[in-house]
Amino acid sequence: MATTLIKGGTVVTATGRSEADVLIDGETIVAVLAPGSVLLGTDLSAGVDTVIDASGKYVIPGGVDAHTHMELPFGGTAASDTFETGTRAAAWGGTTTIIDFAVQTYGQKVLDGLAAWHEKAAGNCAIDYAFHQIIGGVDDDSLAVLPTLVDEGITSFKLFMAYPGVFYSDDAQILKAMQVSAETGMLTMMHAENGPVIDVLAAQLVEKGKTDPYFHGIARAWQAEEEATHRAIMLSNLTGAPLYVVHVSAKQAVEQLAWARDNGQNVFGETCPQYLYLSLEEQLGASSEEWGAFEGSKWVCSTPLRSREEGHQHHMWQALRTNDIQMVSTDHCPFCMKGQKELGLGDFRKIPNGIGSVEHRMDLMYQGVVNGQISLERWVELTSTTPARMFGLYGKKGVIQPGADADIVVYDPNGHTSIGLGKTHHMNMDHSAWEGFEIDGHVDTVLSRGKVVVDGNQYIGSQGDGKFVKRGLSQYLI
Amino acid sequence: MATTLIKGGTVVTATGRSEADVLIDGETIVAVLAPGSVLLGTDLSAGVDTVIDASGKYVIPGGVDAHTHMELPFGGTAASDTFETGTRAAAWGGTTTIIDFAVQTYGQKVLDGLAAWHEKAAGNCAIDYAFHQIIGGVDDDSLAVLPTLVDEGITSFKLFMAYPGVFYSDDAQILKAMQVSAETGMLTMMHAENGPVIDVLAAQLVEKGKTDPYFHGIARAWQAEEEATHRAIMLSNLTGAPLYVVHVSAKQAVEQLAWARDNGQNVFGETCPQYLYLSLEEQLGASSEEWGAFEGSKWVCSTPLRSREEGHQHHMWQALRTNDIQMVSTDHCPFCMKGQKELGLGDFRKIPNGIGSVEHRMDLMYQGVVNGQISLERWVELTSTTPARMFGLYGKKGVIQPGADADIVVYDPNGHTSIGLGKTHHMNMDHSAWEGFEIDGHVDTVLSRGKVVVDGNQYIGSQGDGKFVKRGLSQYLI
Amino acid sequence: MATTLIKGGTVVTATGRSEADVLIDGETIVAVLAPGSVLLGTDLSAGVDTVIDASGKYVIPGGVDAHTHMELPFGGTAASDTFETGTRAAAWGGTTTIIDFAVQTYGQKVLDGLAAWHEKAAGNCAIDYAFHQIIGGVDDDSLAVLPTLVDEGITSFKLFMAYPGVFYSDDAQILKAMQVSAETGMLTMMHAENGPVIDVLAAQLVEKGKTDPYFHGIARAWQAEEEATHRAIMLSNLTGAPLYVVHVSAKQAVEQLAWARDNGQNVFGETCPQYLYLSLEEQLGASSEEWGAFEGSKWVCSTPLRSREEGHQHHMWQALRTNDIQMVSTDHCPFCMKGQKELGLGDFRKIPNGIGSVEHRMDLMYQGVVNGQISLERWVELTSTTPARMFGLYGKKGVIQPGADADIVVYDPNGHTSIGLGKTHHMNMDHSAWEGFEIDGHVDTVLSRGKVVVDGNQYIGSQGDGKFVKRGLSQYLI
Amino acid sequence: MATTLIKGGTVVTATGRSEADVLIDGETIVAVLAPGSVLLGTDLSAGVDTVIDASGKYVIPGGVDAHTHMELPFGGTAASDTFETGTRAAAWGGTTTIIDFAVQTYGQKVLDGLAAWHEKAAGNCAIDYAFHQIIGGVDDDSLAVLPTLVDEGITSFKLFMAYPGVFYSDDAQILKAMQVSAETGMLTMMHAENGPVIDVLAAQLVEKGKTDPYFHGIARAWQAEEEATHRAIMLSNLTGAPLYVVHVSAKQAVEQLAWARDNGQNVFGETCPQYLYLSLEEQLGASSEEWGAFEGSKWVCSTPLRSREEGHQHHMWQALRTNDIQMVSTDHCPFCMKGQKELGLGDFRKIPNGIGSVEHRMDLMYQGVVNGQISLERWVELTSTTPARMFGLYGKKGVIQPGADADIVVYDPNGHTSIGLGKTHHMNMDHSAWEGFEIDGHVDTVLSRGKVVVDGNQYIGSQGDGKFVKRGLSQYLI
Repeated sequence: MATTLIKGGTVVTATGRSEADVLIDGETIVAVLAPGSVLLGTDLSAGVDTVIDASGKYVIPGGVDAHTHMELPFGGTAASDTFETGTRAAAWGGTTTIIDFAVQTYGQKVLDGLAAWHEKAAGNCAIDYAFHQIIGGVDDDSLAVLPTLVDEGITSFKLFMAYPGVFYSDDAQILKAMQVSAETGMLTMMHAENGPVIDVLAAQLVEKGKTDPYFHGIARAWQAEEEATHRAIMLSNLTGAPLYVVHVSAKQAVEQLAWARDNGQNVFGETCPQYLYLSLEEQLGASSEEWGAFEGSKWVCSTPLRSREEGHQHHMWQALRTNDIQMVSTDHCPFCMKGQKELGLGDFRKIPNGIGSVEHRMDLMYQGVVNGQISLERWVELTSTTPARMFGLYGKKGVIQPGADADIVVYDPNGHTSIGLGKTHHMNMDHSAWEGFEIDGHVDTVLSRGKVVVDGNQYIGSQGDGKFVKRGLSQYLI
Repeated sequence: MATTLIKGGTVVTATGRSEADVLIDGETIVAVLAPGSVLLGTDLSAGVDTVIDASGKYVIPGGVDAHTHMELPFGGTAASDTFETGTRAAAWGGTTTIIDFAVQTYGQKVLDGLAAWHEKAAGNCAIDYAFHQIIGGVDDDSLAVLPTLVDEGITSFKLFMAYPGVFYSDDAQILKAMQVSAETGMLTMMHAENGPVIDVLAAQLVEKGKTDPYFHGIARAWQAEEEATHRAIMLSNLTGAPLYVVHVSAKQAVEQLAWARDNGQNVFGETCPQYLYLSLEEQLGASSEEWGAFEGSKWVCSTPLRSREEGHQHHMWQALRTNDIQMVSTDHCPFCMKGQKELGLGDFRKIPNGIGSVEHRMDLMYQGVVNGQISLERWVELTSTTPARMFGLYGKKGVIQPGADADIVVYDPNGHTSIGLGKTHHMNMDHSAWEGFEIDGHVDTVLSRGKVVVDGNQYIGSQGDGKFVKRGLSQYLI
Repeated sequence: MATTLIKGGTVVTATGRSEADVLIDGETIVAVLAPGSVLLGTDLSAGVDTVIDASGKYVIPGGVDAHTHMELPFGGTAASDTFETGTRAAAWGGTTTIIDFAVQTYGQKVLDGLAAWHEKAAGNCAIDYAFHQIIGGVDDDSLAVLPTLVDEGITSFKLFMAYPGVFYSDDAQILKAMQVSAETGMLTMMHAENGPVIDVLAAQLVEKGKTDPYFHGIARAWQAEEEATHRAIMLSNLTGAPLYVVHVSAKQAVEQLAWARDNGQNVFGETCPQYLYLSLEEQLGASSEEWGAFEGSKWVCSTPLRSREEGHQHHMWQALRTNDIQMVSTDHCPFCMKGQKELGLGDFRKIPNGIGSVEHRMDLMYQGVVNGQISLERWVELTSTTPARMFGLYGKKGVIQPGADADIVVYDPNGHTSIGLGKTHHMNMDHSAWEGFEIDGHVDTVLSRGKVVVDGNQYIGSQGDGKFVKRGLSQYLI
Repeated sequence: MATTLIKGGTVVTATGRSEADVLIDGETIVAVLAPGSVLLGTDLSAGVDTVIDASGKYVIPGGVDAHTHMELPFGGTAASDTFETGTRAAAWGGTTTIIDFAVQTYGQKVLDGLAAWHEKAAGNCAIDYAFHQIIGGVDDDSLAVLPTLVDEGITSFKLFMAYPGVFYSDDAQILKAMQVSAETGMLTMMHAENGPVIDVLAAQLVEKGKTDPYFHGIARAWQAEEEATHRAIMLSNLTGAPLYVVHVSAKQAVEQLAWARDNGQNVFGETCPQYLYLSLEEQLGASSEEWGAFEGSKWVCSTPLRSREEGHQHHMWQALRTNDIQMVSTDHCPFCMKGQKELGLGDFRKIPNGIGSVEHRMDLMYQGVVNGQISLERWVELTSTTPARMFGLYGKKGVIQPGADADIVVYDPNGHTSIGLGKTHHMNMDHSAWEGFEIDGHVDTVLSRGKVVVDGNQYIGSQGDGKFVKRGLSQYLI
């Protein structure tokens, strides 16, 4: 097996940094060494196959994006990234593991849904991947199957308090699934928005002719998110199930999470770059020659963008610092404007929900370091270490230590990245939700299990490099 | 320089664990290696001077006790441990760094106080040591000197809202010192109890003949701690000074800290083993043939033990899990019963305040792991990693990585430790505050900068092994 | 028309008390006078038809019980008090107005439900009565009809988050009804318990053989109440509907109400005597020769009794003092043991839910005055003035002032009342939920619109004395 | 004795309103009657000496201003209103009782201070007056005397956490005084600002040349108020003393009060019109030809005006609605620009603190009714009924009922009042802090103990009409 030495860089962990070299043997990290790599007189750098010079750069564990939706059927179409295109884009952006959501819908067998997902992904991925299980239909059958997923390496499942008639679970169903979660230690993930309420508000808006993308955010009022978050917390309290709330966007929802944690509950929250950088006001102002006000549809996602005037973005950065929000994923769910987003012309309810960000998460969050919003260590913790711990991957992923998979990113703080079509953009989308963002840093080199897949500005990996990873139970519970 | 290899153990960090060997060259860790220590065909274990077998054991960064008071003059006597006896006891217990408090009292020059502390410690310590600075007299002179301490490696100072006439600072003084803290980045440490209020209550109790040690805890009501904690938080809010509240014992004070952090403030809290394990009710019940009810004086410390019925201990463990309290120190301040504690016979106000625990902190907190109160990782984080980060030692201390000082403890989860006189007790005290505590684990081997100082049940270090360590600014701020 | 003078008593209002006489002309209060009733030389007492001597006694506005269920069909049976028996019992206990709930069930027309209620009550009542409207089926028809009820004097409607398949509304329905509430000013009343969750828990308990009445309270966990309360608050926040939560029993629900009010919302809460005096522990301990542990069924009501050890009762009395709970009703819903409660032998889910208290509310709450839990003024406010203001009756009811209906109680603080079968008990029940309660006070005289209906220990009113009262919009909103 | 009938008006109380006539015999209300005043055939209006036509107007209990400082020595000068001028101005504005603060300063005997106040007031007042006692020097002597004041009708005392060296009490002193408060039931009033902290900040600002009136508000940061409020609450919790915080201006202080009340504490808060209507931004913008930026000195008061952008005023109106703040006083403490305010030219610390508002409180708060901020009933409650209850005057003051003093205001909702010099302004000041305020209502007639003292736009009372009123203990405690 090939050996690689990453030399001269600054290894950054969730708690600090050190000048150190990293030695890789095959797919695995075998040592973290003092700079120079001379141990007991032996110069280890002499014997390796490859030396990567990381001088002046950060050496970090590869990003773990715990929330992606490749090829997800939604609203009569499907997310535009396949596992192939999506994971390759992820690799470009320094993410070396994704956790995608296998889907079971009402009436379907869980294992059939899972099998379908394995089929989509197997042999196609540029980086390693794992699965959560969406349970769109909590019934006796799915409840019985859930515990068996642990052996399959699937230790978390997601329920929806939104999307009645699609993925929606009612409270009785949630309760039963959470009881399984409490018994097995599986993590309950929750899309916490009150769907029945949102659907009424949305219908009323459309009836009044308020059909532009902006009204998507008005219909999905923060109260609907806050309420569902509280409800999920209380059902977690009642059952003892550990709870992870996905894509938190409202500051009031954050306050509920903080409250639950102050009370000692195992409750966690994830946010996404869009809730840190984008706002409802910008969506209202969005316009283009081609699409007019419908340009705002590129930012239609759920939970929606929130008002900057109300301070959600400011509060969300704060929550990242105080650990009231524990990690950042993308909720990557790309749709093209042509043929997809445009389905919602004249009715925002028909716009496929989702933003494509899997390629940009590491960069966007690094910009938070540059801007003084988070520390360098917190960047690594939020994007890699905690995701790995939260979802039972730590040890293999999320850390640079002997025995870990050699999923490593060499990040250049002196580099620069311009985001946008024709600049950096490898996702299968006809637009970028992040067009024009400039990042004061750059993903230089990406290793996936010891293999260099991104080198400078070249992708040199192959379809199928990535393998399915079985996950253990969460390593983050309190 | 001698080389050492710690083989076969489980290295535990704040975020996880791994099977790994640790290679030490002289005083410094030079590599963390895959088990077996064969790198690129080279068996590194062959070339080392010493191999320590850690099979089946935890390999952790040495404990950092950020709150000790060796030889502290208090109440007409002085803490009974010298730097020699105290640091040796610390080493016995797996602590490899202490941060003691140099003392300036009203009217004294800060640098004189500091010099005196250097004199007490230099050449006497078994392990490395650093200093915080107590400012007992905030005035123009001490305010001017404070910033210069940063270059001396002293990056935190402590103020007292208690002990009027001794260490007490009024709010105007605190404000001015906090302004220096905000400007320099020095960490403000606070003894947060309303001293003037406590002194009135104590005098009233004594006047009514309520003089037993138990009434020490009655006089120091939780309201006095909660109030001072809130006041310190608000002055921190006003000035922007980072704040670290020492020896938190009341759950209501914890709630204030959680509130401040939820609001994004740089506010931290430390607790001590006594507030996790001991209670006011036990102090009330304490009795011995020799001392009668005055036996309770062994647990007279400030802040005081709190009521178990009111749930303080339960809440404090929870706060350790939720990170509302960030670390555990000892507030080691030992006094003998004979000649010292007994000064307060007939008047609890004259009992020297303090408990000796520097030897037992790592064990007592490990028992929390055994009891399911905290995780193994959280144990390392609370006792070593966070103390190092909080006080600017991280990189050298608090972590096992290349470049770090080889301060390492091999901890045996299958060992056992019985605490008490004639069992394990190396502090200079005529009693143990922890008599009878049984620990399901054992400190096997302790290395201080690469030198084995505790080997099995033998102390093999020397007076003066420990050096003064200059600290940088806090690495924990949000 | 007959004239009456109530002389020599202490008139108690929500804000204070005064020595004053009350002059009644026909059905109406015409003056509140200085003691002696000599005005400008005219002795008014000389000319009246009747003089009631209230010396040494309290003269208070008659009680307004805003939550009763006469003849309510529930669980295959019906509440055992008719409007005749129930209102007579109310009169015995110093309550001169009830607000009962007209019922619309799913599929039924609202106005049909209302008409049925008018029919049950008309000509049968001993005291005045008004109606809230239960909307058991929120649909286009009922939403359209709701605003028209205002003109009928029905200005509040109740929804249920509990009882799926019976009265239950889902969140979409609640939202729509609350929008009507916000537009019209009608008050939304809410039974705030998460029914779907409770039904799962109850079924699981029964499946495990836990069928005794006690498990009713276990199934209806406080989390289910807290959660629904928060949800109702947030939907109120979203729509702007004023919200009144009925029969609050959990301290955590009270905390949610307090939080909402601290945020400026128009949110109110009612509790009932059972949540102040009775507990889950007592229900567990209940036993009788006849019924064994099923004796506890007499206290099966929803929300359920709560644990005394958890402190709900203590906290509820506090909330009455701090106005976090604004009023006390009975939720009078009586069922006999024989033939009714016993339907649930072997399955607590089949026990008809309800306690009969309409006769005892004024006495039980007065005992709170004697016990120092509330002030005399607060007694009047909680049981009469605020209920009248909350539900648009103030001016006619809830106050002693010119123009008000002469609904007046002369209450003797030196009297005594023993509650129980064969003692005081005029409700149509074969048992008393309050058996053995002793009250240090006594309802001496009760006037309903100027007519004495209870005189000492005699009921001297007639069936049909009571009239339907149209209510205005709430006079209590902030 | 003369008899008066107020006919045809709407009597407004704290809980509601009614069409009723009010009959007065001498100084006392003897009846509240149905409109028309015909009782049992007797037309009472025929026999009275005076009939006041209140048709279309509100008849309310006269205002009780519980916080005034006539002739208060402060900052080397004295408040410019004497008891004569100040109480006359109060009468003009519909206030019929003031509670002024007798002053004891450090070293002085309490009873001497009180005697001096009696001397200032006796024979000079236009309306009734009572006293609180300021304790500027808590010592054994003052503590011993405090309980004796209850018999003198002085049942509340005020302490200062601000103004070191003037009125300031330290926490030990506050504790001791609060213990007296808890034992006697006397109400502890608190000026809650951290004076030592403010004095440092103020000195630092002046040192930097920031001497304009605006910086008064910067020095007195909200944190200083919030902190002191919390401290007072916690000392109240510790001692059991009921607490009344004067002139609350910061929303964060309100949040502390709400928190204390949610916890069941007897803690109350007062605000003043300036904190509802004026802001720091306006003070910054204040300018005049004569005074330039020093014009802002007219609004220098303590606590200071707060930032409108931070939302304090908005939150304060909300707190009035939710009863987190219970009443509105003026803190009337007038100083002229010439010779008084101008003492602080070049140093804001020397500007005498205070605003004159005693004349305008009823009008300014009525404007809150017009603006939809509070209800008509809440207006009466905040300005009259609660002040009377809070301070043991209820029954005589604060209510219209038989036996009460005939302190009555006829207020015309169709009238208009323009505030300002040369318009309405009878206070002894050379400027108005309320210049230009327009009120959509008017004080028409004012009766003080049965005597008309203001009639339309004429003052027809006499110096000395007002008598000293002994107060009982608070009637508002929970």
